Amino acid sequence: MINSFDSLIRDAVSQQPPTLAVAAAADSYVLRAIRKAVDMRLAGAVLVGDRNEILRLCEAEGISLDGLWIEHAPDKEQACKLAVALVRERRAQVVMKGLVDTSVFLRAILDKENGIRRAPLLSHVAAFEVAGFDRLLLLSDAALNMYPNVDQKQGILENAAEVAKALGVENPIAACVCAIEKVNEKMQPTLDAAELVRRWREGLISNLRVTGPLALDNALFEALALHKGITDPLAGRADILLMPNIEAGNVLYKSLAYIAKARNAGVLIGAGAPVVLTSRSDHEDTKINSIALAIKIALYERSRA
Amino acid sequence: MINSFDSLIRDAVSQQPPTLAVAAAADSYVLRAIRKAVDMRLAGAVLVGDRNEILRLCEAEGISLDGLWIEHAPDKEQACKLAVALVRERRAQVVMKGLVDTSVFLRAILDKENGIRRAPLLSHVAAFEVAGFDRLLLLSDAALNMYPNVDQKQGILENAAEVAKALGVENPIAACVCAIEKVNEKMQPTLDAAELVRRWREGLISNLRVTGPLALDNALFEALALHKGITDPLAGRADILLMPNIEAGNVLYKSLAYIAKARNAGVLIGAGAPVVLTSRSDHEDTKINSIALAIKIALYERSRA
Repeated sequence: MINSFDSLIRDAVSQQPPTLAVAAAADSYVLRAIRKAVDMRLAGAVLVGDRNEILRLCEAEGISLDGLWIEHAPDKEQACKLAVALVRERRAQVVMKGLVDTSVFLRAILDKENGIRRAPLLSHVAAFEVAGFDRLLLLSDAALNMYPNVDQKQGILENAAEVAKALGVENPIAACVCAIEKVNEKMQPTLDAAELVRRWREGLISNLRVTGPLALDNALFEALALHKGITDPLAGRADILLMPNIEAGNVLYKSLAYIAKARNAGVLIGAGAPVVLTSRSDHEDTKINSIALAIKIALYERSRA
Repeated sequence: MINSFDSLIRDAVSQQPPTLAVAAAADSYVLRAIRKAVDMRLAGAVLVGDRNEILRLCEAEGISLDGLWIEHAPDKEQACKLAVALVRERRAQVVMKGLVDTSVFLRAILDKENGIRRAPLLSHVAAFEVAGFDRLLLLSDAALNMYPNVDQKQGILENAAEVAKALGVENPIAACVCAIEKVNEKMQPTLDAAELVRRWREGLISNLRVTGPLALDNALFEALALHKGITDPLAGRADILLMPNIEAGNVLYKSLAYIAKARNAGVLIGAGAPVVLTSRSDHEDTKINSIALAIKIALYERSRA
């Protein structure tokens, strides 16, 4: 089981690295991250975007284009479509957003005719390496699905389970994070948690185990759950934190990244290929971790194909 | 300005300590915390509860009753009512919950005839001492108000401002924490944030300054807010984090307390006296910090009376 980003990166290096298609690659931050990932043998890369602009940036920043392929697409929307097409044609196994609006990029991915929809839902999974934990913690959804209903939450869980499996977690445990441990009719997340546990017990959700409702402390720390008298043997052992809404997800994400200063990565899952969607303000470490995570997922999918 | 719990405790010690009325005091955890607070000269105390049980526990645990007053009330509901009555009669300046259901305790406080309602709303304020910050961070509401509407959020802000002022923060800054920085009609917390900022700008909210919508990172870190191009001079400088819902509040509370391991305290505010409502599972440090915070608020209110 992969329990750190160092071990993830070691593990994601392969003899025949999957190929990354970068949509609207003409951005020095993105180009630097790609260069580094290729040098680390994590990935091959196709830079889709304005060729002249890419050449100009690489020259200005001293970024070598050795072994990188450029597909010329001066228009950003067109670049997104072309990057997605590369996945559809199996010439790339991971898609990455460059300097283009997220909405334009996602539209190309989700396009009914030419996109790469697969699962019922696309969701964001963040991975955190938190001091004191023997595992990476997966958090979903802190970015994409705002107020998921119980069916959407099931989709989020199933997507997150795929990430956990790619990280070598045999039978991941997902905790439905709420503000309390008891079902309270006035708190929808606790009702959803009970329903998701029921579905899992009845075999309607596979690939992972589900527990909840649990507050964060009792989702993550066995000793605290025991002390509180919680008897569910899955309490305190979560690999996956299912967040009740985007505010709770985002707050936990930011708290772990900026206050606990935990190394992290993010990926979109549920499309025909894992999607890297870092933002300019992300640390370079986060960008590389995110590429490594997406590549690891692509390798996992290749191994099952 | 008080920026740590050590300085809070130093500052809350006084020549004539306010009196704590403890409702249903027959609990060894509670009795130990009270003993310590009295020994530290933070508070005087009236133990309201079953006299025989209190005497038995103190003897069994070796807790001295020197300088503690017992008001006999064998029934827990009666004990709550009596503790509240002590505040109403100005014989106590802080109320603390002992071993009794929170709902029974709160009912006595909020009782229309015999309670100690004051502000339009009772809210929970948590204070955190987070490494790297030059101030205590106040978080509300992580415990009591589940899904506050914009008027209730205003009440939560006004209550939190009172806590900030008691800690010596001249003109506290409150950030309306959301998942993003822009108003989005699909995200009610961003609409509420804009409305609260408007009310503050128009002078309808006093005693504090309001900023938002902001994600947590941009509420707390000036450098990150600047890097993101946020021009509001209040961004990154929050003393008070107004949480959009109880799940986000609780998740941040648990993340700070159990992952960032930040020292903390909690108090209920908005009644005729500050209320200490710790739970058995809280660290003794948290119980003492909470008593000190409530006492400090009582001293602040005394100074203004």
